[in-house]
Amino acid sequence: EPVMRSGTLESGAPVVDWKAVKGPLDPEWRLFGRAASDDKASIVAFLAAFDALKASGRKPGVNIKVVWEGEEEAGSPHLADVLTDNKARLQSDLWLIGDAPVHPSRRQMLYFGARGSLTLELTVYGPLHPLHDGHYGNWAPNPAVMAAELIARMRDDDGRILIPGFYDDVTPLTAAEKAAIAALPPVEADLKRQFGIGRSEGSEGLTASTMRPALNVRGIRSGQVGAEATNAIPSEATISIDFRLAPGERPQAVRRKVEAFLAQAGWTLADKAPDLATRLAHPRLVGLAWGDGYPALRTDMTTPAAQAVVAAADKAAGYPVAVLPMMGASVPIYLMNDVFAVPVVGLPIVNHDNNQHAPNENMRLRNLWDGIDTYAAMMAELSW
Amino acid sequence: EPVMRSGTLESGAPVVDWKAVKGPLDPEWRLFGRAASDDKASIVAFLAAFDALKASGRKPGVNIKVVWEGEEEAGSPHLADVLTDNKARLQSDLWLIGDAPVHPSRRQMLYFGARGSLTLELTVYGPLHPLHDGHYGNWAPNPAVMAAELIARMRDDDGRILIPGFYDDVTPLTAAEKAAIAALPPVEADLKRQFGIGRSEGSEGLTASTMRPALNVRGIRSGQVGAEATNAIPSEATISIDFRLAPGERPQAVRRKVEAFLAQAGWTLADKAPDLATRLAHPRLVGLAWGDGYPALRTDMTTPAAQAVVAAADKAAGYPVAVLPMMGASVPIYLMNDVFAVPVVGLPIVNHDNNQHAPNENMRLRNLWDGIDTYAAMMAELSW
Repeated sequence: EPVMRSGTLESGAPVVDWKAVKGPLDPEWRLFGRAASDDKASIVAFLAAFDALKASGRKPGVNIKVVWEGEEEAGSPHLADVLTDNKARLQSDLWLIGDAPVHPSRRQMLYFGARGSLTLELTVYGPLHPLHDGHYGNWAPNPAVMAAELIARMRDDDGRILIPGFYDDVTPLTAAEKAAIAALPPVEADLKRQFGIGRSEGSEGLTASTMRPALNVRGIRSGQVGAEATNAIPSEATISIDFRLAPGERPQAVRRKVEAFLAQAGWTLADKAPDLATRLAHPRLVGLAWGDGYPALRTDMTTPAAQAVVAAADKAAGYPVAVLPMMGASVPIYLMNDVFAVPVVGLPIVNHDNNQHAPNENMRLRNLWDGIDTYAAMMAELSW
Repeated sequence: EPVMRSGTLESGAPVVDWKAVKGPLDPEWRLFGRAASDDKASIVAFLAAFDALKASGRKPGVNIKVVWEGEEEAGSPHLADVLTDNKARLQSDLWLIGDAPVHPSRRQMLYFGARGSLTLELTVYGPLHPLHDGHYGNWAPNPAVMAAELIARMRDDDGRILIPGFYDDVTPLTAAEKAAIAALPPVEADLKRQFGIGRSEGSEGLTASTMRPALNVRGIRSGQVGAEATNAIPSEATISIDFRLAPGERPQAVRRKVEAFLAQAGWTLADKAPDLATRLAHPRLVGLAWGDGYPALRTDMTTPAAQAVVAAADKAAGYPVAVLPMMGASVPIYLMNDVFAVPVVGLPIVNHDNNQHAPNENMRLRNLWDGIDTYAAMMAELSW
């Protein structure tokens, strides 16, 4: 694991005088709070780095334009319009993206893309109301069982998506991208211990697995469990899914493939509240609620701008940073590439074990401090 | 459908003077309330019939002993002790059971057995806490998917149980039982309309389907759905199941078969809160919480006592009543047979569409009135 250090400028002077600010704080302490890591940390780190540069009398080595997007968790419905409407004002040579965590090895990391995203909620319709399962079980269809079978037919428990043709459009990794993945420090054994899991899906390792499209079941609800369970056939089952898309896949094409699979598997697509005639006419009824979704982006790691970012990050960190061809998570950075056609590089700072999107989200102090250093060095030293 | 009528005694006089009590009430009206049908109705009907007999100055044709069980929905944990402790006091020639609904054709019905029952809650363990499914999906195992696959491997969506050897112990139906089932009026098309279902599980029809053991999924819970869904791999999944057992099966043997299947399918049985070492050592961990359960009973329909009950019921109804070799639902009437070794016959009165164990439980007035007549006629006229 890299030794903690402060970023230094060409002069050798530290960007920030940590002795003064850090005082007795243990760098392993964490700040807990909603959005502490995702995504308040990168905003605060950027502002702190900017202030520190200013206080030190240094001018940035490059012109800086700042875009803060507040709707990313809601699918960024207005970002495309904002970027397009302000295209001239936002024109630049490179985009650096602050979202996401660093590598699970705790090394500083750069990412050159992100998977796309598409959500889907399925409602499997059973009887109009719950039925006594002694009198009618084995005869009246059980939507919880139908939902289970549907999931098992869409995806195996090694992460492979079984929907026909799902991988057809996926752009393969380049040799450079495969080499970058192979060069990443192994993290799987540590993560298994952290997560308390006795196996992984697939045997390719974390990063290779997350280069592929994913079908994640986020939740299932049907009937009742625990003390509330009654001997009843549930009236419906709900499955919440998010797809992670790989480069080459478009949300509309994924949607068509899923719907074609459902039709081929004997399912009829239903409205939110199918009427009696519809229910009687179709043996397997499912309602679909699609999110908007957006595609993935994986950019060229070999451009001069990209190489300059890697060099500056290596220098700030004091070791070769982890270079990820694409992040498994989704941020709509395809938009920057679409609108501006310039390199887009992710420069995350927060700890990977930050519990983002879950209870007890946190920010490790050392990541915050290292992040401020990295941002400061990037602003001060980037050139190509 | 049978014409509404009042039971009559040998004298030809009605047991109850319905003109006085029914007034302007529409027999299709329903009483709504928790337990309105299951099982307040049979208690009230019995008392009303007994009062009516008494008021008419008639003596019952048989000696009557009454047992009311208040813990049936909780698995009747004390019934065996009560019956055994009071064996001499409760000795009799025949047990009539008031629980359960009449045939879906709305005909009066007798049943000569009931399936057994056994509940099981499975907890599939995933990561220690929910994980961001962009960063870790496709790599960290998803317990919702594992639960779906587990259900799909235990049972198909036609009700067939796929657990090896599950049907081995099941006692086959006799020729008389098969003939009784074949003689039942068809109800499937009507029920499909009532329930709004476009298919049934299997093609044997309702009664034949419910003669077999059943694996009913009562509920599934994992992660979140709807507006609460987040892009996270859930930390666990819970499946609530009740098995319905057929004659020949014992709860302990079913338990052994399920656990052998799980072991063969690569699952390790875990305690309620498996520790880290256990989680890391086993790729597929599942916690099981078994209910006590009890076996099925299917009694001989050809004994003199059984035939006398059929004859009295036919006479009270004014048409040949539906005769069911065994009810799909479970009541622990095997106990009466075990302890007393006498015929046990179910004499239900409530409507099949009573929503028992579900919201809007109800009792159809006509069933209540017919039930009072039937009980009164049975007490007054039964003999063999």
